[in-house]
Amino acid sequence: MDEFSFIKWIKSNQKKDKKNIVIGIGDDCASIRIHGDKMFLVTTDMLVEGTHFDLKKNTPGEIGRKSIACSISDIAAMGCLAKYAVVSICFPKETKTKFARELYLGIQKMADAFNIKIVGGDIVSSKKTVVVNVTMYGKNEGLKPITRSGAMVDDVIMITGALGGSILGKHIMFKPRLKEGLLLNKKFSINSMIDISDGLAADLGHILEESGVGAVLYEDEVPISEDAKKLAHKTGLSTLHHALHDGEDYELLFTLSSKESKKLLASRSFPARLSKIGHINNSKGIKMQDTDGKLKKIKPIGYKHFK
Amino acid sequence: MDEFSFIKWIKSNQKKDKKNIVIGIGDDCASIRIHGDKMFLVTTDMLVEGTHFDLKKNTPGEIGRKSIACSISDIAAMGCLAKYAVVSICFPKETKTKFARELYLGIQKMADAFNIKIVGGDIVSSKKTVVVNVTMYGKNEGLKPITRSGAMVDDVIMITGALGGSILGKHIMFKPRLKEGLLLNKKFSINSMIDISDGLAADLGHILEESGVGAVLYEDEVPISEDAKKLAHKTGLSTLHHALHDGEDYELLFTLSSKESKKLLASRSFPARLSKIGHINNSKGIKMQDTDGKLKKIKPIGYKHFK
Repeated sequence: MDEFSFIKWIKSNQKKDKKNIVIGIGDDCASIRIHGDKMFLVTTDMLVEGTHFDLKKNTPGEIGRKSIACSISDIAAMGCLAKYAVVSICFPKETKTKFARELYLGIQKMADAFNIKIVGGDIVSSKKTVVVNVTMYGKNEGLKPITRSGAMVDDVIMITGALGGSILGKHIMFKPRLKEGLLLNKKFSINSMIDISDGLAADLGHILEESGVGAVLYEDEVPISEDAKKLAHKTGLSTLHHALHDGEDYELLFTLSSKESKKLLASRSFPARLSKIGHINNSKGIKMQDTDGKLKKIKPIGYKHFK
Repeated sequence: MDEFSFIKWIKSNQKKDKKNIVIGIGDDCASIRIHGDKMFLVTTDMLVEGTHFDLKKNTPGEIGRKSIACSISDIAAMGCLAKYAVVSICFPKETKTKFARELYLGIQKMADAFNIKIVGGDIVSSKKTVVVNVTMYGKNEGLKPITRSGAMVDDVIMITGALGGSILGKHIMFKPRLKEGLLLNKKFSINSMIDISDGLAADLGHILEESGVGAVLYEDEVPISEDAKKLAHKTGLSTLHHALHDGEDYELLFTLSSKESKKLLASRSFPARLSKIGHINNSKGIKMQDTDGKLKKIKPIGYKHFK
């Protein structure tokens, strides 16, 4: 099976309710109208041992931390505020109380740091595998949630932070860009946004597909992380390759008009590094522009769960 | 570890917010105030291969069906209306599209039957195990959600349907009592309610603990299912034992004043079998009263995930 075509098929089965379901399947969060302009945002993330974390490499606290951070990042990608969470955890039968508590404290500490209240959950057993599912609720605070589908031709493409090599540590210890997402939505007119979980090329691909547009990226402008450089040494791949196709950076990728982009770059107080990495056009797919101005097609390849 | 003491520990760590969190950790659903008397109810359930279903015995459609039915039953236990769900599914890497679609259709059909909209989800892979997590949102429809903590001395204890032997089929194919729960809340004054997932004795135990009261059950009045009789033949245990301690009947257990109970039993249109099985008193624990009026203590033992 292929998860993206499976999700497309699920989406095609979706029952519509335009009055109440403002945003449904296929964005970082769903958005449900509750009263006038008031909406609640909802996102759910399942993290599985062997796929999203490794019991040999990660402490239980780190696993808990990441489980909730992924959901906070999804609310960040809508430019909204995270408020409440429910948590399901599956522990193997022989799990010790110490391990369980440490994992939960990882979740709790992260929730506290972002002023999120955990209001419920489910604790179950399995034969072997540790699984954590977090469902997070956000509020829109009178703002319009920023979707993947609003990118417009001539938009500037921007990104927070630096990309690549997250497997060396950032994938588990990243700080979700909740403050940055909310600030972008409050102070600027952002046309589309997503958080980088599958990788820059794949996640930009999601924006392009949902918005029905294409993009050009500037080879020299993609911000490369130190870990992408370290990893490139080991893998023999280019640092750019890692920045484009490694997943789990949890940076915010967004598009906005050139005018808004200038306003944003002129505002000195933004709490994260910002890079202009390309622009939206009306062709299809992603092209990479090198220093000589030459264009080369790149594939929106990123992390895939099923081969 | 023991899941009940773990949940108690989690509850003791819980951050309070009395204004907005009307019901927090430890009931069938949490309840969040969104606007005046409007609340949203939320519950989350994780179902794991080998614990909640068996790939050799259950079809993928049945697994999907059960995954969402458990969450609907939790909303039913609050006497509220189920509205929206998000679904996370973890499939082993080699899963075929046919299996994945059949499982999802099991969820979708059940959602349709109860007029619930699926608004989002997460699809991930594991090495081996199938896991489904459903988070369900309900609305209170101007009603007060019915908690586990409202049982009062002299309340009558009642139950829908018949109990025991769910492992022979009902645990996977039960129909959640959503209509019945909402009807009870709308037309009658119900003091406490829970759905039977851990077993009658254990779930009554939850009501007693949260309400700070005790209970007497009448041996002859506990409704025994046909499957409890069949199973008792095999196990050599009594049918009453199965009715008291088998889990996953997903019937509604509730308490109400004697006057309300008479009103309920006189209303001929209730869509399920109803039984008066005992009463609440101000002692501790559960006692079973036999036909001679003799009282015997019974333990609130039910399904436990961790030994």
